[in-house]
Amino acid sequence: MTLEQTIQKASVLVESLPYIRTFFGKTFVIKYGGSAMPDQDVQRDIALDVILLRYVGVKPVLVHGGGPAITETMRAVGREPQFVNGRRVTDAETMRIVRMVMMGIINTDIVSTINRFGGKAVGLSGHDGNLIVARKRLERAPTGETVDLGFVGDVERIHPELVQELAENGYIPVVAPIGAGYQGESYNINADSVAGELAAALRADKLIILTDVEGILEEPGNPASLISALQVQRARRMMEEGSIAGGMVPKVEACIRALEAGVPRTHIIDGRVSHSLLLEIFTDRGIGTMVVS
Amino acid sequence: MTLEQTIQKASVLVESLPYIRTFFGKTFVIKYGGSAMPDQDVQRDIALDVILLRYVGVKPVLVHGGGPAITETMRAVGREPQFVNGRRVTDAETMRIVRMVMMGIINTDIVSTINRFGGKAVGLSGHDGNLIVARKRLERAPTGETVDLGFVGDVERIHPELVQELAENGYIPVVAPIGAGYQGESYNINADSVAGELAAALRADKLIILTDVEGILEEPGNPASLISALQVQRARRMMEEGSIAGGMVPKVEACIRALEAGVPRTHIIDGRVSHSLLLEIFTDRGIGTMVVS
Amino acid sequence: MTLEQTIQKASVLVESLPYIRTFFGKTFVIKYGGSAMPDQDVQRDIALDVILLRYVGVKPVLVHGGGPAITETMRAVGREPQFVNGRRVTDAETMRIVRMVMMGIINTDIVSTINRFGGKAVGLSGHDGNLIVARKRLERAPTGETVDLGFVGDVERIHPELVQELAENGYIPVVAPIGAGYQGESYNINADSVAGELAAALRADKLIILTDVEGILEEPGNPASLISALQVQRARRMMEEGSIAGGMVPKVEACIRALEAGVPRTHIIDGRVSHSLLLEIFTDRGIGTMVVS
Amino acid sequence: MTLEQTIQKASVLVESLPYIRTFFGKTFVIKYGGSAMPDQDVQRDIALDVILLRYVGVKPVLVHGGGPAITETMRAVGREPQFVNGRRVTDAETMRIVRMVMMGIINTDIVSTINRFGGKAVGLSGHDGNLIVARKRLERAPTGETVDLGFVGDVERIHPELVQELAENGYIPVVAPIGAGYQGESYNINADSVAGELAAALRADKLIILTDVEGILEEPGNPASLISALQVQRARRMMEEGSIAGGMVPKVEACIRALEAGVPRTHIIDGRVSHSLLLEIFTDRGIGTMVVS
Amino acid sequence: MTLEQTIQKASVLVESLPYIRTFFGKTFVIKYGGSAMPDQDVQRDIALDVILLRYVGVKPVLVHGGGPAITETMRAVGREPQFVNGRRVTDAETMRIVRMVMMGIINTDIVSTINRFGGKAVGLSGHDGNLIVARKRLERAPTGETVDLGFVGDVERIHPELVQELAENGYIPVVAPIGAGYQGESYNINADSVAGELAAALRADKLIILTDVEGILEEPGNPASLISALQVQRARRMMEEGSIAGGMVPKVEACIRALEAGVPRTHIIDGRVSHSLLLEIFTDRGIGTMVVS
Amino acid sequence: MTLEQTIQKASVLVESLPYIRTFFGKTFVIKYGGSAMPDQDVQRDIALDVILLRYVGVKPVLVHGGGPAITETMRAVGREPQFVNGRRVTDAETMRIVRMVMMGIINTDIVSTINRFGGKAVGLSGHDGNLIVARKRLERAPTGETVDLGFVGDVERIHPELVQELAENGYIPVVAPIGAGYQGESYNINADSVAGELAAALRADKLIILTDVEGILEEPGNPASLISALQVQRARRMMEEGSIAGGMVPKVEACIRALEAGVPRTHIIDGRVSHSLLLEIFTDRGIGTMVVS
Repeated sequence: MTLEQTIQKASVLVESLPYIRTFFGKTFVIKYGGSAMPDQDVQRDIALDVILLRYVGVKPVLVHGGGPAITETMRAVGREPQFVNGRRVTDAETMRIVRMVMMGIINTDIVSTINRFGGKAVGLSGHDGNLIVARKRLERAPTGETVDLGFVGDVERIHPELVQELAENGYIPVVAPIGAGYQGESYNINADSVAGELAAALRADKLIILTDVEGILEEPGNPASLISALQVQRARRMMEEGSIAGGMVPKVEACIRALEAGVPRTHIIDGRVSHSLLLEIFTDRGIGTMVVS
Repeated sequence: MTLEQTIQKASVLVESLPYIRTFFGKTFVIKYGGSAMPDQDVQRDIALDVILLRYVGVKPVLVHGGGPAITETMRAVGREPQFVNGRRVTDAETMRIVRMVMMGIINTDIVSTINRFGGKAVGLSGHDGNLIVARKRLERAPTGETVDLGFVGDVERIHPELVQELAENGYIPVVAPIGAGYQGESYNINADSVAGELAAALRADKLIILTDVEGILEEPGNPASLISALQVQRARRMMEEGSIAGGMVPKVEACIRALEAGVPRTHIIDGRVSHSLLLEIFTDRGIGTMVVS
Repeated sequence: MTLEQTIQKASVLVESLPYIRTFFGKTFVIKYGGSAMPDQDVQRDIALDVILLRYVGVKPVLVHGGGPAITETMRAVGREPQFVNGRRVTDAETMRIVRMVMMGIINTDIVSTINRFGGKAVGLSGHDGNLIVARKRLERAPTGETVDLGFVGDVERIHPELVQELAENGYIPVVAPIGAGYQGESYNINADSVAGELAAALRADKLIILTDVEGILEEPGNPASLISALQVQRARRMMEEGSIAGGMVPKVEACIRALEAGVPRTHIIDGRVSHSLLLEIFTDRGIGTMVVS
Repeated sequence: MTLEQTIQKASVLVESLPYIRTFFGKTFVIKYGGSAMPDQDVQRDIALDVILLRYVGVKPVLVHGGGPAITETMRAVGREPQFVNGRRVTDAETMRIVRMVMMGIINTDIVSTINRFGGKAVGLSGHDGNLIVARKRLERAPTGETVDLGFVGDVERIHPELVQELAENGYIPVVAPIGAGYQGESYNINADSVAGELAAALRADKLIILTDVEGILEEPGNPASLISALQVQRARRMMEEGSIAGGMVPKVEACIRALEAGVPRTHIIDGRVSHSLLLEIFTDRGIGTMVVS
Repeated sequence: MTLEQTIQKASVLVESLPYIRTFFGKTFVIKYGGSAMPDQDVQRDIALDVILLRYVGVKPVLVHGGGPAITETMRAVGREPQFVNGRRVTDAETMRIVRMVMMGIINTDIVSTINRFGGKAVGLSGHDGNLIVARKRLERAPTGETVDLGFVGDVERIHPELVQELAENGYIPVVAPIGAGYQGESYNINADSVAGELAAALRADKLIILTDVEGILEEPGNPASLISALQVQRARRMMEEGSIAGGMVPKVEACIRALEAGVPRTHIIDGRVSHSLLLEIFTDRGIGTMVVS
Repeated sequence: MTLEQTIQKASVLVESLPYIRTFFGKTFVIKYGGSAMPDQDVQRDIALDVILLRYVGVKPVLVHGGGPAITETMRAVGREPQFVNGRRVTDAETMRIVRMVMMGIINTDIVSTINRFGGKAVGLSGHDGNLIVARKRLERAPTGETVDLGFVGDVERIHPELVQELAENGYIPVVAPIGAGYQGESYNINADSVAGELAAALRADKLIILTDVEGILEEPGNPASLISALQVQRARRMMEEGSIAGGMVPKVEACIRALEAGVPRTHIIDGRVSHSLLLEIFTDRGIGTMVVS
């Protein structure tokens, strides 16, 4: 590398300074995973981004999903997954698989990747320190009847102390979206919802949801129609009209939940772009959609 | 209940006072599990005992095993476990199962049980906060050759800070015996060894290993020949002679490791007895074998 | 003791867990003494109970009385005690005797007993750290005239910092009911009143007054007519009607004072029952009368 | 007062600055009482001096005696005091009187005086927080036989934590020379010894013993022969020769004990001189005798 | 010195006790300088007074002016100072001189004097830790036009953290009246205004402005007409009428500003009197004028 | 900027991670100034670099020189600077100018620049908090005689507490090379020496001296002969031989002083290169000369 190029590099560091200053000491809740996670390189890139955030003074809290890996493991033991309204029907045996894949594979992999590159991650489920108290979710099927989805839950309450203490002491909490019921039973919760509720309970300064599309599009399928800033009111209308649909709905709802609790900024960004987290945080180039109140 | 009986009960509390005083603020590492764990009632009793310890000022740290449950899950997916010198041959796929069962089922169950009865448990593997750094174990088969057991590891180093901080803040750490290799890979480690090393690194005041026999017996099979206090020297001789053998060997070695690091008292006790932990700690009635230096 | 009996004992410990959990870190003001104190065994039992409370995380603060011992000492030096409305007429010389007996004998005995059994008690009068500021009490005799009782005082103000700091650091404060006047003179104050005011100033979680009767009785002399829970309104009516009278009046008034200041639970219990404190706190068996708002 | 005089006063404050600077944050153990105490004005002056010390950053710890007042009270109840080698023969009843007078009268009076003038004093006996652990003193009579003096004790051990915590929090500890035996019994200890041991245990920066003579004199009865600085070696010789005798012996021994434990300066000064404490500390004018190693 | 005189001295210390008690832990902002400063002896006396305040628990914060020394240096380099409404016209080169004299000479001299006599002073300008944010002052000339005075500023905002942290850690902050503009440029601010604003921002307990006259006089030139206590309302009227005029106006305005922000007492006193600070603080003799709300 | 370029930028941040991790929480002493300072752009670049260091967890401490600016100001008032062995002859009037330029201009300019770009700098001289205690330097002229250079000093002692406290609280200390003599007088000290002594006293992790040449050259004038790593032994030889000479001598001596006190790494680098600080710290590209023990 020439001296010129090296100096170029130093300038980049300096350009990031105003952003570092702004976010020093702030808490960011970052959701990633589900479809956004398979690629090992992406996983490493996100780990690096998160560690960097930690070192420049941000307190990142990760929430991950797990859909595809769970489906895969269920099929490997001969069980065909079923979904109602995008929620996985979760009987006792499925819940066992969810727990095993979530905690034993996905969570541990993320923790291990972060630590390998120099961070200090700690994996948590909603059981740890009673972090996520859950109640059974009552799902209304398209037909209008209430459907029993088994161990599918909603967040009843967050006890954020454990996450706060760990973040305060330099650790990076990595949270699996499993809630604890009052009898000690486990519930499968949508990871976007967990991220939204956690951001709200922590009074985070940013909620960032990494996904595998460009963001929210005006015209489905046309990346050029990306909406950079989406107001809550319009977001609600688009969900009613169905122009925001499917897996994007809980993401938008998580943003709205966080905004209502006072989180100042929420983002849905494209996790497939290399270092998209840093781009979002350290440059003026908006990538993806910012949901604003 | 008559007033007489109620008063009787109060006296029991008062009799425990000298023990409470002695152990106030002390750290106990408690290993349980493997065969000692299946029964739900025992699990609940141990949870209650551990919570009580926490409330009377002791800082308990749990380490659990997982043998039988792993074997069961392996068989469920059609894999027959193999053992060399009592160590499970652990190829990559087996390691996946170990992680899933350990973290997703056993660890979460213990955490959930403790929290349900009012404790604040946090589940950890060796990856969390880089708690247990492991190296590949070189096993010498009875034939004299070195055998590759795959992802079977030994403790290379303990970073006890995370466990200390959690215990200091009122949490009960529950540790799964999985170590983190330098490349971030996972290792399956004997749970007794982890307990011994953790007790040593924490400079614990007691190491208590719950098992499913009466303790160490002079004559195998004769409970009346229970050795109440076993000196390290004699323990070593008994291991050489084979009168301590099988699964008892790593337990005794864990005690010796802890004693050498300055842990003042180590115990191998009968986890099948109801509230055996409290009996050991709060009464003069020795149950099981105390290994002493 | 058989193993069965030992296990029985461990169960008692476990049964106390929910109570321990509830009261962890809470402050209890406990008044005992006066007639409830003579017996050495009772004194030792109460000391043990208080130490146990301390070890399971409760912060006990003791207030003691001193009536009979003072009377005895006065008579020994040839002075006949006089009472108006149950208050001891306290001239300068009597006040000297009150101080000597209260601080030199009773308070020091309690401190010594607690320390001997392993607690860390510190004796205090209202002078220490200006704990109890007192003003002269204006007593209206039954005849309607105001009577000068000499150095009999009422609590003007509590400075609870010293008690809080000691309790926070693991000490058990033992408070004699002597108040400090603005000129540094001492006042003899009713110990029940001091306990009530101290509970109020400390925002204690319980005020427990040990006495030498069963509690408050519906029909005087009939223990079977014990009132388990007495509402403030009814208590006031009973005092007006005279069915609560004599030494029980300041006890009930202390409870009311504490309740009004936000102390959630106040109790008048039978100190003659062995370990009555533990029975009240660690079992569901109500002993004595709970005064509730 | 003229402006000139007022300015004169301000200069005095300024002249004290170098001393204030030197002693900031230091601990002084000050013994006073016994014969040096009767006068109310002297008591007030000493209280003022001690409060001033506290405000300019010194941590004063007081130890008081009680001889004359105890003798007086004993006689009032018809008991004639007996002494062996200057130690009061202390049977059980005498010990009761010692405790009553020491804690109920003298200690409380000092605490009350200090608080009235704006300090925050806390009275302590050796029982409080187990401050002074005592053992029975074996006294050898001039005849050579060992005499049983009853509850006369020597300091076995000091637990200085309570005094340190109180002093650290701005309180002025006032210590009565009563020790706690292993069975909880009380012992009457020489106050000078307590002061010396306390200074040693606290690693104080000064031990100052106020007495009612000018200091140590070369020729008994000739104030002009005052020894300003007395070396330990010479002090020992003078005690052997008997030129230091009587009540001065335990004072000198207390100084020697403190010096040996590393207390840098020890003084025996004339408590009858108004504000003698301030004179000693804030001026270059040596009053009394400094014992040096 | 005779013993009598020495005792006299000790009494002075004792008489200061009530004042010391009142002001313990309080923050005083003290403005001195400008004409009040030239004399080296006065400078030393003020340093001693300030150190003494620090040692008896007061947290003094100094603000100094610099007028005459700046004028002198300007003339030395051949520039004739110009004033409008008493404010120095400050072009870029003059500002350089102001900074050099203020920071390099006056501030450093004060710091050095305090440290030499045993204090721990730290010199600050408004740039340090962004202590004083300034905006350009718009001055209206007597003719009615707005005049450009160059780098003359008003306090826009105080960031008191740095001063608080230093004072909390035992340092004596010494502040030069230079403000920092938003582009990093320096502004020359009236030192009395800085003192008033700093007292307000620190919620000081006293603002004391040392000057070179007796205080505020009823009849100009007649010291006997000194106003001891001046109410804000009357002060405002006197400024309107012109009976308070010239350099006294910003002093009175600083007092009013501080009073409005809740500073309880503000004083304008005669700095020429030896130890005037101590006289004001430690005696009842009011010297100068107290401005009260 | 294209997305490609933006991603490129993010990668640079990520590449800096290992360096950030290594230097987190470490203290760097950075000397710059003298000839390396005139250019405003360079000054801004260095300010930005230093702020960035602070935000990524490094504790930078700056030391500046001031030669050319002082010479310029001296000439402006008609004084011709004189040098002996490269040391400025400093009579009282020259010392006044040194103080004025150092504190009033250079130090304040650096502080102001750092704060304007978002850091929190605090300017200090050796007088502040008694940071640098100096003694008069005895200079031996080439002729062998001792020459009186006036107020030229050497570091006698560093009191690093003030710098440590400020750095700990997030401030960036900026130190002018002026020492405080025992009479409070000021001394002009070589800035490189101050940097070396400060690095030693702070037990810094790096000493970086910015200069206006490439580093230490094998052949004077030939940049290609730059020595990347210079051992102390060789450095000493080169100074004796004169191949290291002039202003480079105190720089090398400062490095040696720091190395001897345990500072692990010392660097002399080219301050004219843009962002040379970041290049040195955040890349593997060595710029300039590292002096190693």
